Amino acid sequence: MTTAHLPPVYPDLAVPERVLLGPGPSMVDPRVLQAMTAPVVGHLDPQFVALMDRVQDLLHYVFQTRNALTLPISGTGTAAMEAAVANMVVPGDAVLVCANGYFGLRIAEMARRYGGEVSVLERPWGEVFTAEEIGTALAHCPAQVVALVHGETSTGAMQPLDGIADAVHAHGGVLIVDTVASLAGVPLAVDALGIDVCYSGAQKCLSCPPGVSPITLSPRAVEKLERRPVPVANWYLDLALLRQYWGAPRVYHHTAPISSIYALYEALRLVAEEGLEARAARHRRHAELLWEGLAELGLALHVPAAHRLPPLTTVCVPDGVDEAAIRRRLLDEYNIEISGGLGSLKGRVWRVGLMGHSSRRENIVLLLAALRRLLR
Amino acid sequence: MTTAHLPPVYPDLAVPERVLLGPGPSMVDPRVLQAMTAPVVGHLDPQFVALMDRVQDLLHYVFQTRNALTLPISGTGTAAMEAAVANMVVPGDAVLVCANGYFGLRIAEMARRYGGEVSVLERPWGEVFTAEEIGTALAHCPAQVVALVHGETSTGAMQPLDGIADAVHAHGGVLIVDTVASLAGVPLAVDALGIDVCYSGAQKCLSCPPGVSPITLSPRAVEKLERRPVPVANWYLDLALLRQYWGAPRVYHHTAPISSIYALYEALRLVAEEGLEARAARHRRHAELLWEGLAELGLALHVPAAHRLPPLTTVCVPDGVDEAAIRRRLLDEYNIEISGGLGSLKGRVWRVGLMGHSSRRENIVLLLAALRRLLR
Repeated sequence: MTTAHLPPVYPDLAVPERVLLGPGPSMVDPRVLQAMTAPVVGHLDPQFVALMDRVQDLLHYVFQTRNALTLPISGTGTAAMEAAVANMVVPGDAVLVCANGYFGLRIAEMARRYGGEVSVLERPWGEVFTAEEIGTALAHCPAQVVALVHGETSTGAMQPLDGIADAVHAHGGVLIVDTVASLAGVPLAVDALGIDVCYSGAQKCLSCPPGVSPITLSPRAVEKLERRPVPVANWYLDLALLRQYWGAPRVYHHTAPISSIYALYEALRLVAEEGLEARAARHRRHAELLWEGLAELGLALHVPAAHRLPPLTTVCVPDGVDEAAIRRRLLDEYNIEISGGLGSLKGRVWRVGLMGHSSRRENIVLLLAALRRLLR
Repeated sequence: MTTAHLPPVYPDLAVPERVLLGPGPSMVDPRVLQAMTAPVVGHLDPQFVALMDRVQDLLHYVFQTRNALTLPISGTGTAAMEAAVANMVVPGDAVLVCANGYFGLRIAEMARRYGGEVSVLERPWGEVFTAEEIGTALAHCPAQVVALVHGETSTGAMQPLDGIADAVHAHGGVLIVDTVASLAGVPLAVDALGIDVCYSGAQKCLSCPPGVSPITLSPRAVEKLERRPVPVANWYLDLALLRQYWGAPRVYHHTAPISSIYALYEALRLVAEEGLEARAARHRRHAELLWEGLAELGLALHVPAAHRLPPLTTVCVPDGVDEAAIRRRLLDEYNIEISGGLGSLKGRVWRVGLMGHSSRRENIVLLLAALRRLLR
């Protein structure tokens, strides 16, 4: 063996304490960070298997579902999105993606890669769809899979979900809903809404470090999974295999990210301790405090009040302001992270997240005070 | 919102301190666990970007490579395997998989799902291939992609790698080598061996919690990636996109698992501090101590000495011994985890891992003493 590439001595890990008010990751409760220092155990250890059961119970609560197939994907939110698409889209399926932002378009791109015949129903970024227009689109062109984003992190719009599953089911499809930026931050009841595949990420309103991502499948989605004529192209995310590990036979599939599951357990416990209703109310209360403060600063919001997503607010950049310079100064001078716009909103908005442990009064007051100084 | 599914109060996280002597995860140095308690920062934070660069430098050292495209995949070792296969296999490619154990067969299954025309060169579990027989197989049936496993965790055999890349390149292919169970535990020099795609996991000889998995691509592999006529079906693991985030443009792709990257950085620093040569020597010295001790107990090993993988030893279960009962008692009475056999070795062997932080003299002496008591 050569040691030609012997590296220099590397410094101790030293990261700043940021006030994370971007679109995620959000700040993490110290209890959750502490959980990751627990000793690693084997992925088939009886004690770990018992913990898996408790995590699944807590996910049932957070998703408000009784779906048996409910588990955390071993990857970040995008992996859960891919799991939903890869498992539900059979090559040749008609797929309708309702896209009013960056993440809707990402779903469409994935669905194409998995062989779906994708139609995209588009809306300007920041607007939302009605159940009627989705029903009309399906009447013209039925789809086996329909996907939309509940909380569009790229726009700050919250998609109303009432009635959509009925329209999708009436045309024989399954409904995939992305709740990466909304789960545990706004009211969401998977079973009551009739959602077939719902997924999220850990690092938004659950306030857990990124790395594991909850997903749940309705009986209708499981039936579709079981009837697939061809296996899922993606082996790592094949839910037909994953359910054998997270379910009764406990068949080895891949090594679960043990420490991340510890963190998720603690983050879910915090959600249960606060209660979903109180947590959603806190997110809304703090979002309103932010919106009022921004209005006092003369800043306009991109999304009309009726469809705003409390965990993520898009703020219009005033004419003549260098939006990137403001973000850089917020980070350098105040240790505050907010984010710029994506895609068609790049350069036009700031994105301010108030998610999970980041959604605290002191953070909002600090951000408003810092913005007041920087914009005057 | 309904609170119909309100969960009961869940207990504090409490996991036992196991002596992890299975096929992974291995034990984790307290410094690595501690690293995960550092505050989470954004995935585009300049401080995090600087850390990404340092992680990549350290991966160059650990892989002994100068490959520009070297990064950690945001998933466990299986995700890195899938990244290798998904990115290298173009639908219709002839793929030769040399399979002498469970993980070779897994690669073959993945390659089929990505549209490869897969041939499997098989050897009994525990044996290894010669460069000559691989060359002969390719002469009969050239392959665009050849894959094999360096350290077969299912068998405890270590595949010699000298001369194989030459045979593969002579027939116009790229060589994928799985080093999940060998990287940083045995000598391995990716560039010197001519390997095109090499990947590993965090939770074996790197002794990091599972969740991030290093991969490196040679210029030849990058050229194949860039010339793909169709995009990679797997969006999350598409290296053409990932390199834009881990490389210069720093384009957002997915939220990196921040805390897991902290852990990987600290684990890689520990490898660099020890030095690869010293680390490989420690793994071999301790493996030999184990092998001698097992011989004294009258236990036979499944793999001949010449091809044994020091980080993972397969021990033949003596006739008349209930192998699962022994493992259960090791866990319950001594807090020691070892593993049973997979596939064709199920019920016939125990698998004992001495990987990374688990490869310590005291662990071996403890295991031998416990086995002596249980087997007498």
